[in-house]
Amino acid sequence: MVNQDPAGPASAEQRLKESGIQLPAAPEPLGTYVATVQTGTLLFLSGMLPIENGKAAFVGRLGAELDVETGQQAARRAALNALALVQKQLGSLDRVMRVVRLGVSVVTIDDFRSHAQVADGASELLQQVFGKEKNPTRLVAGVVSLPLGCPVLLELIFEVSSKE
Amino acid sequence: MVNQDPAGPASAEQRLKESGIQLPAAPEPLGTYVATVQTGTLLFLSGMLPIENGKAAFVGRLGAELDVETGQQAARRAALNALALVQKQLGSLDRVMRVVRLGVSVVTIDDFRSHAQVADGASELLQQVFGKEKNPTRLVAGVVSLPLGCPVLLELIFEVSSKE
Amino acid sequence: MVNQDPAGPASAEQRLKESGIQLPAAPEPLGTYVATVQTGTLLFLSGMLPIENGKAAFVGRLGAELDVETGQQAARRAALNALALVQKQLGSLDRVMRVVRLGVSVVTIDDFRSHAQVADGASELLQQVFGKEKNPTRLVAGVVSLPLGCPVLLELIFEVSSKE
Repeated sequence: MVNQDPAGPASAEQRLKESGIQLPAAPEPLGTYVATVQTGTLLFLSGMLPIENGKAAFVGRLGAELDVETGQQAARRAALNALALVQKQLGSLDRVMRVVRLGVSVVTIDDFRSHAQVADGASELLQQVFGKEKNPTRLVAGVVSLPLGCPVLLELIFEVSSKE
Repeated sequence: MVNQDPAGPASAEQRLKESGIQLPAAPEPLGTYVATVQTGTLLFLSGMLPIENGKAAFVGRLGAELDVETGQQAARRAALNALALVQKQLGSLDRVMRVVRLGVSVVTIDDFRSHAQVADGASELLQQVFGKEKNPTRLVAGVVSLPLGCPVLLELIFEVSSKE
Repeated sequence: MVNQDPAGPASAEQRLKESGIQLPAAPEPLGTYVATVQTGTLLFLSGMLPIENGKAAFVGRLGAELDVETGQQAARRAALNALALVQKQLGSLDRVMRVVRLGVSVVTIDDFRSHAQVADGASELLQQVFGKEKNPTRLVAGVVSLPLGCPVLLELIFEVSSKE
């Protein structure tokens, strides 16, 4: 079981392996920008969408075409893309010291109220992989539209260990 | 009066006391995340809403159900929650060296224009407590919806003095 | 030509000069906040709008009153304001080591899809001045409204060299 390794708490890579989660290919930028920038010990990610092979895996608005459960799946899918990107960029998820900031933009109709539940689709995956003690601050807001018609966009900033 | 202390400018805690402002209880997270993360000298806060005891103290859209003055009160209420959280987290508001970033998301109708006035409800409280020389950068945007139906959400990043 | 200087790659100030770009006057804050805050090597900017002399140079929504090309011009205009502000604040654009984060909020109707193209109006100007190797991470979202009725708002964080 996770966390019962006699040598200490399970690493993110161990947790990922034990949970059977398969990471997708890391997403490529959709325009004139880069996927990640590291400055000091902070790693900034570009906005993560629920895309597969450059196409939207989910399309629609929460409260209209999509229900909360589907929104959670979209948020989780975007978070998987983020994990794939961080693993590719850092070589190992174990270089993540802390998830500093998770911002979640959700496309909603006017009177949608379940933002926190949708965002938890991303938050719970991050907690599963990095552990509760690395949980981030979070901001969630309902927006009008997102690139490619996606229902969810994630902002992520990580604290990472220094390059060796 | 504030700022006439012979030993130097008033501290944030002094200003708070002299202004008679009562801070509420620090808000608790609404999902799988934490209230604050410190990385180096930067303190990130989760999104601050105008909530009291876990419930929305203000509900509605600017330009529709709510007027600008009410929006300002909601922004001020969210900022009071932020101050309570920072005081609880750092032990004293005097450990704040600078307010680095204030982001303000306001729920509005299409043709709303008075974003800056609504945001000033939060900015003026921060200035009153921390002083003009610690004023932050600011971003303001009109969104479709926010958690719990709140009209305002604050993003805050502080520069803080090192832990003793 | 740019980049063929025997002493090394062209500087941002050289590129700016050779491209014939005229920077506008740096924008002034619209409320109780400051234009920039530097903390460590990070320079945070307040939200940059496509304004001229304190007034909106572009007004409207993408997908309704404004087409994608006009949105790109608005994004470029906001980025010119950002360059003017950074130059004024740092003394020289050559103190920019990296553009860390570009966030682009675009006012859109529900079914707008061309966010990335609009954002490229800002991204391409930044790349032209700072070079491809300093390109930032990017987030783009469609919002309901922005201050002064502007169609675009930019969030910018730069990594800068230490003050001399």
